[in-house]
Amino acid sequence: MSGTTDLVIAADFESAATWVHHYGELIGTVAFAASGALAAVRRNLDIVGIVVLASATALGGGIMRDVLIGHTPPTAFTDLIFLIAATVTALVIFVRHPGNRLTRWPLLLTDAVGLGLFCVTGTVVAYDAGLGAPTSALLGVTTAIGGGVIRDVLSGQVPGVLRPDESLYAIPAMVGAVVTAVLLYFGVYNAWAGLLCAAVTIAFRLLALRYGWNGPRPHYARHDETE
Amino acid sequence: MSGTTDLVIAADFESAATWVHHYGELIGTVAFAASGALAAVRRNLDIVGIVVLASATALGGGIMRDVLIGHTPPTAFTDLIFLIAATVTALVIFVRHPGNRLTRWPLLLTDAVGLGLFCVTGTVVAYDAGLGAPTSALLGVTTAIGGGVIRDVLSGQVPGVLRPDESLYAIPAMVGAVVTAVLLYFGVYNAWAGLLCAAVTIAFRLLALRYGWNGPRPHYARHDETE
Amino acid sequence: MSGTTDLVIAADFESAATWVHHYGELIGTVAFAASGALAAVRRNLDIVGIVVLASATALGGGIMRDVLIGHTPPTAFTDLIFLIAATVTALVIFVRHPGNRLTRWPLLLTDAVGLGLFCVTGTVVAYDAGLGAPTSALLGVTTAIGGGVIRDVLSGQVPGVLRPDESLYAIPAMVGAVVTAVLLYFGVYNAWAGLLCAAVTIAFRLLALRYGWNGPRPHYARHDETE
Repeated sequence: MSGTTDLVIAADFESAATWVHHYGELIGTVAFAASGALAAVRRNLDIVGIVVLASATALGGGIMRDVLIGHTPPTAFTDLIFLIAATVTALVIFVRHPGNRLTRWPLLLTDAVGLGLFCVTGTVVAYDAGLGAPTSALLGVTTAIGGGVIRDVLSGQVPGVLRPDESLYAIPAMVGAVVTAVLLYFGVYNAWAGLLCAAVTIAFRLLALRYGWNGPRPHYARHDETE
Repeated sequence: MSGTTDLVIAADFESAATWVHHYGELIGTVAFAASGALAAVRRNLDIVGIVVLASATALGGGIMRDVLIGHTPPTAFTDLIFLIAATVTALVIFVRHPGNRLTRWPLLLTDAVGLGLFCVTGTVVAYDAGLGAPTSALLGVTTAIGGGVIRDVLSGQVPGVLRPDESLYAIPAMVGAVVTAVLLYFGVYNAWAGLLCAAVTIAFRLLALRYGWNGPRPHYARHDETE
Repeated sequence: MSGTTDLVIAADFESAATWVHHYGELIGTVAFAASGALAAVRRNLDIVGIVVLASATALGGGIMRDVLIGHTPPTAFTDLIFLIAATVTALVIFVRHPGNRLTRWPLLLTDAVGLGLFCVTGTVVAYDAGLGAPTSALLGVTTAIGGGVIRDVLSGQVPGVLRPDESLYAIPAMVGAVVTAVLLYFGVYNAWAGLLCAAVTIAFRLLALRYGWNGPRPHYARHDETE
């Protein structure tokens, strides 16, 4: 392993990681925008409402992360590709979408893809900003969950992460972010590892949905389900 | 055009723009505070709730903008005139207000005035902070819409910008912010142009309300309006 | 009073104030985490939902304060003791808690303790960051109220501070924060004064709850309670 080889490997790693970061963010943005647009279709909003809800969902998590790490103005406000991607996605969904009885699975699927990609990219962005590994993982989870929470609160719904009948949502994001942070900490993170983390997170979330995996409920609450 | 004349014109422009900015912000604050206080009266809140909701509505958009551009602590926390203006407005509404069946139009009217003024001043503040024209326009829209969204979410309502039966709200703010940003970009923005932008935005919003202008709805949703 | 004595007193004051600040924040975090966890039990959430709602309640106010004063990333993301305290509290509540019909008073009690401690520590943190006394008091109130507002909005409820049938909530926090800021401004704040401010705030809030103290309601609204 000569110094030259090291340099090449480092450069390769750098560009591949950047590639995953940039395109991962972009695909995550499109996925979350689709989930926001589908939620808007479900509520019968007009075209402006669809674009606004899609953008808030797609950009909200990243804006929260950037504000929390002091990176202002957030990338979503300066690199317009993300807003354009969210808007185009919303317009495509406006033109072609399932009837609103059939939006449930496409919404959950796109949301899972956004969740998986953002828990990885959010962690990487925070770590690159010089934060410690645990803080980076926390910010990754915040990025991943933030957009969906904003979407649900703005739609007048309790966020999925807090609905008693919903399947595991925060746990897959936490697993993806923690594994990413550990890989970053030991210097073995690279583009493919990032993609793998995202894929595992997405698969975990979809399996939780398919099989209704849920955390245990409080003891008394099971016998006394009133208000 | 001697250098001296240029200088005088520049100074004049500067002070007029500052005047519009400061008083525009103040009048926008009063208008949004009134809309928040009327929303609180409508929900039969006590005097503390009225002041809190009025302040959150009036100051929320500007606080969001300042946090997003990294101007911390936000002006609303350091220049107390805005909080005092919001509180006094709330107290005036507390003492003299229409019965709560009659709050709808005063609420929409004051909200439109705040929307028009804040989309202009928000854009100017962001541009003055050194941000690009598109980013400034986006922040102007965020400032204008932010206060109303906070008011509606805190009142337990879906924000007007996302209600299917509401008239155009984001589009007027977008028009006002984009025109302001274009004028700033080409160096021809001045106080009167700013006032005109605000007036056009307010008129656009009120016409949309009066005539029920709405964006198109998704196709399938029209035939299949269930959940 | 020799210079040496002054120095000793100053050092003593410093460490005592730091002690109150750190442990006050920690106990406030545990109290708010308990209130969030009890709100989650009340809504029959699973263990993940309980931990998420407890953490958002306990850390939300401080995160808002830190973002508003430009202290990024917020302490809650860098000093993990607060997240650990919130999580452990949530797990304890998960294992041992009253039936969900009986959560009302424990929830209100723990919320009052958090409110009292955070309005003091929030004001001190802002003042220590170099902000003026009125701004610090405002940030103290924001810190104290913020967590509960986040808890209520995420649970799909109108925040207690804005519920017409709720007792005084913002006023006790305001009293605690203003007295703390005045003491800081005149240089006579110390650990015991801080504890006293917190205790008075907690007592004020609990008395308001016990005796149903409320602000006056708008005049017309009393006769015209529809919508």
